[in-house]
Amino acid sequence: MKQMKWWGWGDPDITFDITARPALWAYLVNSTGIENDRGLKVSNANLESIKLSEPVLNNNFLKILKGILKPEQMQYDFYERLIHTYGKSFRDLWRIRNGIVDRSPDIVCYPGTEEQIQAIVAAATQFDVVLIPFGGGSNIAGCLEPRDCQNRMVLSLDMQHMNKVLEVDSYSMTARIQAGVRGPNMEEQLNQHGMTLGHFPDSFEFSSIGGWVATRSAGMQSDKYGKMEDMVIALKMVTPAGTIVTRPVPKCSNGIGINQLCIGSEGIFGVITEVTVQVHHLPARKQFHGWLFPDFESGISAVYEATLQNIAPSMTRLNDAQKTALSFSYKTRGSFMQQLLSRMLLLHLKFVKKFSMDKVCLMLAAFEGDNINTQIKKISAIYKKHGAVPLGTSPGKSFEKSKYDFPYFRDFVMDYGVTADVSETATTWKNLLPLYYHTQKSIQQAIIDTGSKAWCGCHVSHTYKTGASLYFTFAFKQSSAVLNQYLQVKKSAEDAFIKFNSTLSHHHAVGYEHMPWISDDISATGIKAVQGIKTTLDPKNIMNPGKIIPNNFSLTDWGWTGEQECT
Amino acid sequence: MKQMKWWGWGDPDITFDITARPALWAYLVNSTGIENDRGLKVSNANLESIKLSEPVLNNNFLKILKGILKPEQMQYDFYERLIHTYGKSFRDLWRIRNGIVDRSPDIVCYPGTEEQIQAIVAAATQFDVVLIPFGGGSNIAGCLEPRDCQNRMVLSLDMQHMNKVLEVDSYSMTARIQAGVRGPNMEEQLNQHGMTLGHFPDSFEFSSIGGWVATRSAGMQSDKYGKMEDMVIALKMVTPAGTIVTRPVPKCSNGIGINQLCIGSEGIFGVITEVTVQVHHLPARKQFHGWLFPDFESGISAVYEATLQNIAPSMTRLNDAQKTALSFSYKTRGSFMQQLLSRMLLLHLKFVKKFSMDKVCLMLAAFEGDNINTQIKKISAIYKKHGAVPLGTSPGKSFEKSKYDFPYFRDFVMDYGVTADVSETATTWKNLLPLYYHTQKSIQQAIIDTGSKAWCGCHVSHTYKTGASLYFTFAFKQSSAVLNQYLQVKKSAEDAFIKFNSTLSHHHAVGYEHMPWISDDISATGIKAVQGIKTTLDPKNIMNPGKIIPNNFSLTDWGWTGEQECT
Repeated sequence: MKQMKWWGWGDPDITFDITARPALWAYLVNSTGIENDRGLKVSNANLESIKLSEPVLNNNFLKILKGILKPEQMQYDFYERLIHTYGKSFRDLWRIRNGIVDRSPDIVCYPGTEEQIQAIVAAATQFDVVLIPFGGGSNIAGCLEPRDCQNRMVLSLDMQHMNKVLEVDSYSMTARIQAGVRGPNMEEQLNQHGMTLGHFPDSFEFSSIGGWVATRSAGMQSDKYGKMEDMVIALKMVTPAGTIVTRPVPKCSNGIGINQLCIGSEGIFGVITEVTVQVHHLPARKQFHGWLFPDFESGISAVYEATLQNIAPSMTRLNDAQKTALSFSYKTRGSFMQQLLSRMLLLHLKFVKKFSMDKVCLMLAAFEGDNINTQIKKISAIYKKHGAVPLGTSPGKSFEKSKYDFPYFRDFVMDYGVTADVSETATTWKNLLPLYYHTQKSIQQAIIDTGSKAWCGCHVSHTYKTGASLYFTFAFKQSSAVLNQYLQVKKSAEDAFIKFNSTLSHHHAVGYEHMPWISDDISATGIKAVQGIKTTLDPKNIMNPGKIIPNNFSLTDWGWTGEQECT
Repeated sequence: MKQMKWWGWGDPDITFDITARPALWAYLVNSTGIENDRGLKVSNANLESIKLSEPVLNNNFLKILKGILKPEQMQYDFYERLIHTYGKSFRDLWRIRNGIVDRSPDIVCYPGTEEQIQAIVAAATQFDVVLIPFGGGSNIAGCLEPRDCQNRMVLSLDMQHMNKVLEVDSYSMTARIQAGVRGPNMEEQLNQHGMTLGHFPDSFEFSSIGGWVATRSAGMQSDKYGKMEDMVIALKMVTPAGTIVTRPVPKCSNGIGINQLCIGSEGIFGVITEVTVQVHHLPARKQFHGWLFPDFESGISAVYEATLQNIAPSMTRLNDAQKTALSFSYKTRGSFMQQLLSRMLLLHLKFVKKFSMDKVCLMLAAFEGDNINTQIKKISAIYKKHGAVPLGTSPGKSFEKSKYDFPYFRDFVMDYGVTADVSETATTWKNLLPLYYHTQKSIQQAIIDTGSKAWCGCHVSHTYKTGASLYFTFAFKQSSAVLNQYLQVKKSAEDAFIKFNSTLSHHHAVGYEHMPWISDDISATGIKAVQGIKTTLDPKNIMNPGKIIPNNFSLTDWGWTGEQECT
């Protein structure tokens, strides 16, 4: 299995080509205030300059390990250790590009069976070795970085060999799947049975089902297929205290939900090895359609009404004005978007529809099934009621072509000294716009306070009967203190979420990057409960330590001023 | 708030009137082999003969308690203690009717605020007093009986004064509700806002939302509205280690799901005081329709197909042949059912439709909304394809009138020395019929093995994309060893569930009556995880001890032969 670039997102063979998008460079220069000179790259990613931490090798453990795995399943070399050091958060990428690697795994293992994982977990428990489960390495909340206080040997458990769809019950619409399989491979195997999981997160190409379960992931079409916690009906998780095995039943009343106690556990209790999920027949047809709304508020009203009437598309993606402007600039040569912005349409929107062009919002919606036309007709009626102008299928085609490409653009802007990152949350419908206004303002102010020009956009991409998610993207020219500047801005977003009664994350997990807000989000007693499970299932704290549950070490990055000892 | 009968189900003013159901007595006599003499009651329920356990009073605790509650909120009298001793399981009712009451709560308290509950929990923790949260007292899995090993003072915390719908957000479709409110009162308050929770369990009239959450309850219309674990978006739970508070957000990725760690906890971690749930507009119209299927198999195929096609009614209740025969016998004088069984219809079914009358199965389905006719048309087409004969709305009207009455009939049969109880589970579609055949056979054989004539019926009442629930009802003439006989039969049902890869309960909870199967259901490591939370949130084990997590004391009833010490 191909691993992602060590210094950035995605396929090492793919480079972001800005020349294919003629308006984008100017938009970037204008939005961030960077120098208008494409030769001025500031990135200094240099593999040779990186020094990894001196390997900590626990020989008693290694002796046992050699009896469990074949030599080719155990990797110690520089490159393997490096690509398993971080996920793909802005901080991860900036540090690795700048050669800042405090602590890498000491060994990377590729188990092939559940028995091997059980044996590894048992040996690691016995000899006090840290284990970090690794799916595709796409996490952006700091879930993968070694954060052990005790500087024990760290083993990164790369699950990619556990990549089989073990069983498809096409009568009950369930599939039993090994945790390490990544998106495209899994869908290929399911498609052979005429089935799909319907889970397409932005990270789809490089993330695994085990990772989705461990982080409560949401795919682009969660409105139809649900989030990961809605899909799982059974699972297996190997912990230091034994293996949790649940039964494949649609619902039960057998005490608290044991599946839900594993889903979202981010590797801190154990290794998820197998998941039984609900699957779906491949849709007969699938279409993306675009609309333009006069402003974000009218777009949200339209999305709300569709949800209330139970006729939501399988995907609804409403960009605010900033994100819309970015989408327009992101267009490729000769694409529909280019035509869209042609003089005629502009004139129509401005003078006939009276749209204010700095407020206009792009909506993309996906429709699936055999009654697409009926769905579109119903949705169109609602959207038009709220002032939307239909754009047909062309913007959707552009979206589909480039839907997984955005992280490549982030890497590109980093080359030019631009920090770009995201923060996402969810809240009730009533709270959605107040939260939006407040967070947008907070992020912009935080950026300005660091001396940079602020760019902040937002989209709504997951809707529920009771509310929706808000996904903020922000970008700005780096100051001299890049990480501090970033932390200040990121903090402003998360603080706003917590202040406005929403959650620290809708689908990106806690890791250690979101840890400062977990206490406010789930309450101190909620954390005690998580700690209670942790202490029982993993008394030696060998499973992905320093994640979810706050400790002083994890919080120092965020200006924690308490005791600095590592706990 | 009126409490239920001390010796049976429901309103003390309601007595089951078998004379209104002319075919029922004969059916009962024939099914169970009891004497055909309505004068031969064997029940000896006698309030005067009951002796409660000597009160265990912890004076240090009581001193504090008197500072927290008003005198009228603290009840010590015989009747209060008695009605808070048990739930309403067969074992509960048989024991109380026979004066078998090993251990009653020593005091019953009626808190009115969350602050009072926090103070009570803190004092109970300090002075080692057992707390058992009490909603409506309808539980049938042994969740309410004091099962403390250490014979500490036991306080039953009756939540009925916490009965307000605190807030309805009719834009976001959420309601914040105090945990102690019972079904009818809650619906009345929501209805004033044009809203409904859509949760109508069989116990609706006498159970509370806190109890529903604590047991992962399912209502009759769960196919439309979901189970309790699907409805909750936030809650508060007061534990000895502090209060868990979650945020009202539709979905999140902030570690494991803290709501789900409280839902189903059956009082063993703390007291659920407040729940924020998704609510729904009151449906414009609601209709029940009936059908007859040639057999259970064709009925299940029809239900399956409707589910697969996403056109399931809000309720689907398919009775097997035995349950259908009981339904026919249950008919009141002059009702549709009587007409139905008229000679003409019988002739039609037998000779035109070629139905075998001992296999025919009754299906009741509920439809809601403003497009009922379209729904019914679609469902009718599917059902007819599978051989169903439509019966129109009359059987539904009978069902609606008596839908909460069945437990009164159980009390009636107990008067005549008949044991009647239920066991329910859920499994995948593929496994549904194999599980049905096996369980039905196991229950029948177990009854026969005790020397009684066997009656066992089943219905399907909750459907999902991946499977459905099976709800077994069994009845038989009591032998001389009533409880042993009961345990033997109950065991046969639960053993079958576990053997056939399904769950110990779909919506009745664990309590201590289902405890022998919890290890097989959620795995030993799953139990460790639950124990880990328990130990952390409730280190002194004051919260409803002896439930969910097996201990020797709890298992002695089931023939446990290990060490007999209480742990």
